[in-house]
Amino acid sequence: MRTYPTPPLDEVELHRILFALSDPTRLAMVTELNVTGELSVGEQLAGEVPKSTLSHHNKILRESGLTACRPEGTRCYISLRKDDLERRFPGLLDTLLSHSTVRHVTH
Amino acid sequence: MRTYPTPPLDEVELHRILFALSDPTRLAMVTELNVTGELSVGEQLAGEVPKSTLSHHNKILRESGLTACRPEGTRCYISLRKDDLERRFPGLLDTLLSHSTVRHVTH
Repeated sequence: MRTYPTPPLDEVELHRILFALSDPTRLAMVTELNVTGELSVGEQLAGEVPKSTLSHHNKILRESGLTACRPEGTRCYISLRKDDLERRFPGLLDTLLSHSTVRHVTH
Repeated sequence: MRTYPTPPLDEVELHRILFALSDPTRLAMVTELNVTGELSVGEQLAGEVPKSTLSHHNKILRESGLTACRPEGTRCYISLRKDDLERRFPGLLDTLLSHSTVRHVTH
């Protein structure tokens, strides 16, 4: 079974979080997950971004520590690690997302 | 005379700010400027990073909207656009820098 490793909380680094959010599509994906909660890849950004592009961005988001993936059958359900991030960097995610005006981006 | 253009406030974009801060050396430069105020390139990071490297990073920081340069003779004095950034993204810079543990980075 395919696994989707995430970094442990004490290895989540600020500059990697900022890099993950420095791309408008990834910022839109995180903004969306913050509102909707868990989503499968096919549901992200209204299915308007190619799955291969989403998979690439999901990998960067997950490896930065921002998101986690819950496998179910052949699907992967993605969610923000809100509680973990709040413990590691209190207030950071809320502040960043309060300034995100990205709603919809297609590549 | 060489000029150092900065983007007007309403063109400063969140994802470019985040990209500028996604590099540990640039995060250290901004953390330092936040503490010291204006610095010449030669004074940044205790002179331990090559000037060409600093110039490259200073360009990215300036073009993102984070910093400004005040030319004086052959020197360029760099400062954070704190007031501008606070108007554009209230609370963002303080929150980001409160989580920056970068103190000293050499490349």
